[in-house]
Amino acid sequence: MHNIYNQGLDKVAANSQPLTPINFLNRTADVYPDKVAIIHGDQQFTYREYRQNVRRLASALIQRGVKTGDTVSIIAANIPAFLDAHYGVPLTGAVLNSINIRLDAQAIAFILDHSECDVLLTDTAFAPTVKKALALCTRAPLVIDIDDDIECEDAERIGELEYQDLLTEGDENFQGNLIHDEWQALALNYTSGTTGNPKGVVYSHRGAYLNAVGNNMIWPLASDSVYLWTLPMFHCNGWCFPWTVVAMAGTHVCLRQVEVNAIVTSLIEHNVSHFCGAPIVLNMILNADSELLDRIPRGINIMTAGAPPPATVIKGMEAHGFDITQGYGLTEVYGPCVVSEWKSQWDELTDDERAALKARQGVRYPTQEEVDVLDPQTMLPVAADAETVGEIMFRGNTTMKGYLKNDTATVEAFKHGWFHSGDLAVKHPDGFIEIRDRSKDIIISGGENISSVEVEGVLYQHPAVMEAAVVARKDEKWGESPCAFVTLKADKDASEREIIEFCREHMANFKAPKTIVFSELPKTSTGKVQKFILREKVKQLSEV
Amino acid sequence: MHNIYNQGLDKVAANSQPLTPINFLNRTADVYPDKVAIIHGDQQFTYREYRQNVRRLASALIQRGVKTGDTVSIIAANIPAFLDAHYGVPLTGAVLNSINIRLDAQAIAFILDHSECDVLLTDTAFAPTVKKALALCTRAPLVIDIDDDIECEDAERIGELEYQDLLTEGDENFQGNLIHDEWQALALNYTSGTTGNPKGVVYSHRGAYLNAVGNNMIWPLASDSVYLWTLPMFHCNGWCFPWTVVAMAGTHVCLRQVEVNAIVTSLIEHNVSHFCGAPIVLNMILNADSELLDRIPRGINIMTAGAPPPATVIKGMEAHGFDITQGYGLTEVYGPCVVSEWKSQWDELTDDERAALKARQGVRYPTQEEVDVLDPQTMLPVAADAETVGEIMFRGNTTMKGYLKNDTATVEAFKHGWFHSGDLAVKHPDGFIEIRDRSKDIIISGGENISSVEVEGVLYQHPAVMEAAVVARKDEKWGESPCAFVTLKADKDASEREIIEFCREHMANFKAPKTIVFSELPKTSTGKVQKFILREKVKQLSEV
Repeated sequence: MHNIYNQGLDKVAANSQPLTPINFLNRTADVYPDKVAIIHGDQQFTYREYRQNVRRLASALIQRGVKTGDTVSIIAANIPAFLDAHYGVPLTGAVLNSINIRLDAQAIAFILDHSECDVLLTDTAFAPTVKKALALCTRAPLVIDIDDDIECEDAERIGELEYQDLLTEGDENFQGNLIHDEWQALALNYTSGTTGNPKGVVYSHRGAYLNAVGNNMIWPLASDSVYLWTLPMFHCNGWCFPWTVVAMAGTHVCLRQVEVNAIVTSLIEHNVSHFCGAPIVLNMILNADSELLDRIPRGINIMTAGAPPPATVIKGMEAHGFDITQGYGLTEVYGPCVVSEWKSQWDELTDDERAALKARQGVRYPTQEEVDVLDPQTMLPVAADAETVGEIMFRGNTTMKGYLKNDTATVEAFKHGWFHSGDLAVKHPDGFIEIRDRSKDIIISGGENISSVEVEGVLYQHPAVMEAAVVARKDEKWGESPCAFVTLKADKDASEREIIEFCREHMANFKAPKTIVFSELPKTSTGKVQKFILREKVKQLSEV
Repeated sequence: MHNIYNQGLDKVAANSQPLTPINFLNRTADVYPDKVAIIHGDQQFTYREYRQNVRRLASALIQRGVKTGDTVSIIAANIPAFLDAHYGVPLTGAVLNSINIRLDAQAIAFILDHSECDVLLTDTAFAPTVKKALALCTRAPLVIDIDDDIECEDAERIGELEYQDLLTEGDENFQGNLIHDEWQALALNYTSGTTGNPKGVVYSHRGAYLNAVGNNMIWPLASDSVYLWTLPMFHCNGWCFPWTVVAMAGTHVCLRQVEVNAIVTSLIEHNVSHFCGAPIVLNMILNADSELLDRIPRGINIMTAGAPPPATVIKGMEAHGFDITQGYGLTEVYGPCVVSEWKSQWDELTDDERAALKARQGVRYPTQEEVDVLDPQTMLPVAADAETVGEIMFRGNTTMKGYLKNDTATVEAFKHGWFHSGDLAVKHPDGFIEIRDRSKDIIISGGENISSVEVEGVLYQHPAVMEAAVVARKDEKWGESPCAFVTLKADKDASEREIIEFCREHMANFKAPKTIVFSELPKTSTGKVQKFILREKVKQLSEV
C-alpha cells in the first residue's frame, strides 16, 4: 500500500531515545544543581550532590561486576541511600529489587534466591533478620551495609563494606550504562502473597517513566513542593514518587520511622506540601495529640491508597485542613493508577456526601490506557449502575512486564489481553469505580454477597472504634457471617452488643457482623490489615 | 549472556499500548462528559459532544475512503472544526496537515501537491485563495467547506459538501482505526521556508503525546483551566496544546481573529487562565486601550515563543499582572521544548534583572532528552560562559520523524545524531541558553558579529518605538552594518538621529544601527517578522 510516511522517516538518535526516569535526575541536576534534593535529619543533599552519589553508586557497582540484567536488592528504611538506589542501580543496567523490611528471614531468603540477587544493600537496622536470611539463602551476594547516621548506632555490620565506602570507590562523573531499550527491566517488587510464595513483579523503564509523569498529572507537584516519605519506598517503588518528585524538582524529606510524632514534627519543620500513605497513616495522624494536630499547617496534600479509606477518616482529615486524594492500584500496575478525581461542582455538597464521593476509587490515570470493571466470564464491561459487581481490569503502559520466572502466573494474569486485578468493584453511572472487595474477601451469607469493606465503613462511624477489619466466619445457618475485629480508642468504650446494634441501625441487617472481637489488628508494613491472620483466628474461634 | 529478565516478560496487549494523544480525549470524555470542552462565540460543546463530533468526523472520512497514511489537510482559523480535526483525523490513521492561512495560492498548491493531499477541510473565510490554489494544484482532493457560523456569512463554497453535513454522515460511537505503532505519523506541518520550497515536518503519535505531557510539566494546567486560542493551531499544531488542554480536561476558547479587542474581551468574558502567543501578541495587548487593559484580571498565564520577547515587553506585561513563561523551539521539535524555567530565589531581584532572566530561552523540557549548544564543527558543548556562541541542537523524543519526501534535508538536519536548529546561542554558567540569532540573521560588521536580537532589544527600550527589526545592510567600509526597521507608537515621535543616538548610548557603538527605516513590519501569521522581505527592501535601499 502506498504510504508516503513510511519512507525516510525512521528512528535515529536525534529523534528517538528510550523513555527512562533516569533522565529526570539528569535534567533536574542540570537545571537546579544547588536546590536541596534530599533532607534527612540534619543531613541535606543538593541535586548536584544527589546526582554525584548516584553516579558514584553506579560506577562502583559496575566496577564490582554488576551488569545489565543483574539484580541489586535493597532492604532499607526511607533513607537517602534508598533514593540513590532508585537511580544508581538502573544506571548500571541492573534491576532494583526493593524488599519489604517487615519480612521474616525465610521470606527474604526466598526473594534473594528467586531474584538471583547479585548485590544486597542492607540497612544495618535490619541486620539480625537479614543475617539469618543470608544463612538460609543458597546464593552469596555481595553484601553492603548501609550504616545510617540516624538512630542506628552500634548496629551490627554483616556486609563486606559500608555504603559510604562503596560510594568512594565510584566516579562522580560516571555517565552510566546507556539504556538502549525502554522495555528493559528497571525494578522488581515482590507481592506480599498471602498464600504460597510471593511473585516478583517486573517494571520497565518505560512504565516507570510514564507512571512518574502520570502521578504529576493527577496530583501536581512543582519545584517548591516538599515531599515527606511516609510511604515505604519498597512499596511499588514508593508508588514511583522517587521519580516524580525528581522530575518536578521537588525536595524529598526522608523518614526512618513511620510514627506519629516523627510525621507531625516533619510536616511542621520542613513545610511539607505532599505525602502519601495508606489510610492507617491518616488514622494515626487523626488520633494524634490534638495540640500537635493543631500545629500542622492547613493545605497539605495527601495521596492515600493501599486500602479503601473509610469515609469518616477522609472527613476527619479534611476537617483538619488536609487535602486528600484517593488512589487505587496494585503492585502489578506500578501502584495507584486509578484516582478519585475531584470535580469542582462537588465542592458544594455536604461533608458526608463529599466524603462518600472521595471514598470511591475513581477513574484511570491519563497514563494508563484502559481501566474497567469487566465480567470475568464474558470479558464485557458491567452495567454502570453502582450495583453490578465485576472485576477491575487494566490494560496499558503502566502494567507490569510480568512475573519473574513465573510464566504460568504471568499468562494467567494477562489472559484475554487484560491484567486481572482480583479486586471486585461496581461502576457508578458517572464511570467512577468503587471497590467492593478482593475476590477472596467477599463474605457470602445466605447466598448474599457482603462486602467486608462496606461493613468496615459502618464500624468506623462508631464513635468508639479506632480500627476495624471484617472477615468471614463459618456459620452453620448462613454458610458464612461477618466477623469484625475491632480496636477501641484509648479513651472510649463499647460492648460487642452496642457495636452490633449500631451496625444494624446503619446497614441491612444481614450485613451486620454477628461477632465482634476486640483485638489489635495484624498489619503489613504498609498498613494493610493482614486478613489471612484474622481468618486463622476466626477458625480458632469456630473450633471453640 | 544469562539475563533472567529476558524471559517470559514480553509485550502483550495488557502491558503495552501505543502512546497517542487520542487517548487523552477518550479519558477526559469518560471522566468529564458534561464539562464544557469548547467555547466558540455563543456555541458550546461538552466533552461528550466533542468526542461525538470527533468520532463522526473519523467515521465519515473513512467511509469516504480515507485510510492509514493518507493526508487530510486543513486551512482554518482557530475554530471548533480545527480542534475536531486534531483527534478525528488521527483516529482514521491519516495524517493531519495544518496549512498556514496566510499563505498565497501558489504556496498552498505546493503543499497540497507535495503532501499528496486526499481531503482538504477549508474554512470558507479563505475560499478565494484556496480556490486559486486548487486550480494550480495537480491533485483533486475531496474538498470540504467549513462554513463557520461566526463572521463568515455569504462566504463562497468551493467544496463538495459542508463540514456539518460530513459530520452527519459519521457514527458518533465509532471507535476509530486503532493505532498499532506509536511511531506512526500523526501530523505534517510545513516550515515557512524563507528560501526555496517549504519542508514538510512529520510528527509521530509518540512525540505528540510526550510533548503534550511536557507542556503540562513546565506550564501546569488543571481541569479548571480555560485556554484561549490566540496561537494559530496551524503553528506546530498550536504547539500541541489541542492535546495538552484535553489531557488536563481544560476548556478551549476559540478565537477567529487574533485582534486586540477580541483577545481582551475573551480574556475577561471567559475567565481565561492560559494563553500562548508570539511576543507580538503580547505587544499588541500592552498597547491596547488602557481602560480595557485595566479590566483584565491579574494572574493570567502566558506562554510566549516564536521569537525572543524584548525584556521591556515582558516587564510591561508583568506590570499588568500577567504571568509570563518564555519557551523556545522550532517546528522540527514540536514547538517549544526549551523553557525559561523560573527559580523562586529570582523573585527578589529588580524588575530589570528579572526581565533579563526571563528573556533567556532557558532549559530543556523534561520530555526532550537533550538540548545543548554545540560547536557544529567539533560537536562538543561550548563553554558555559555566556559568550561563546554555538548552535542549539536537540536529541530526544520530541524531535520530528523527519522531512516528508526529502531524505537529503532529513539526513542533513540529523547529522552526527543531533537535530541542528540553525539557531545560534550562548550558554550561561547556570546552563540556561540564550539565543543570539538565526545563523542567517547575524550581522558581520568589521569582522565582529552583531546579534540583530540584541540591537532590537535596545530599540524596544526607546519610549517611542512600537516595533523594531534589524537586518544586515551591505556596507562598503564594514562589509555589513545593522539597518533597523522601526514602527513608532501612535502618539509618539522620534527622528532617525535620535534613535541611533539612543542605541549608541545603550550598547557598543559598532552594534548601533547605521540606518533607521520607518515602516510597517511584514509579518507571518504567527507574528514573526519576515526578515527576508526586509532584506529585499535593504537591497533596494543600497541600490539607490
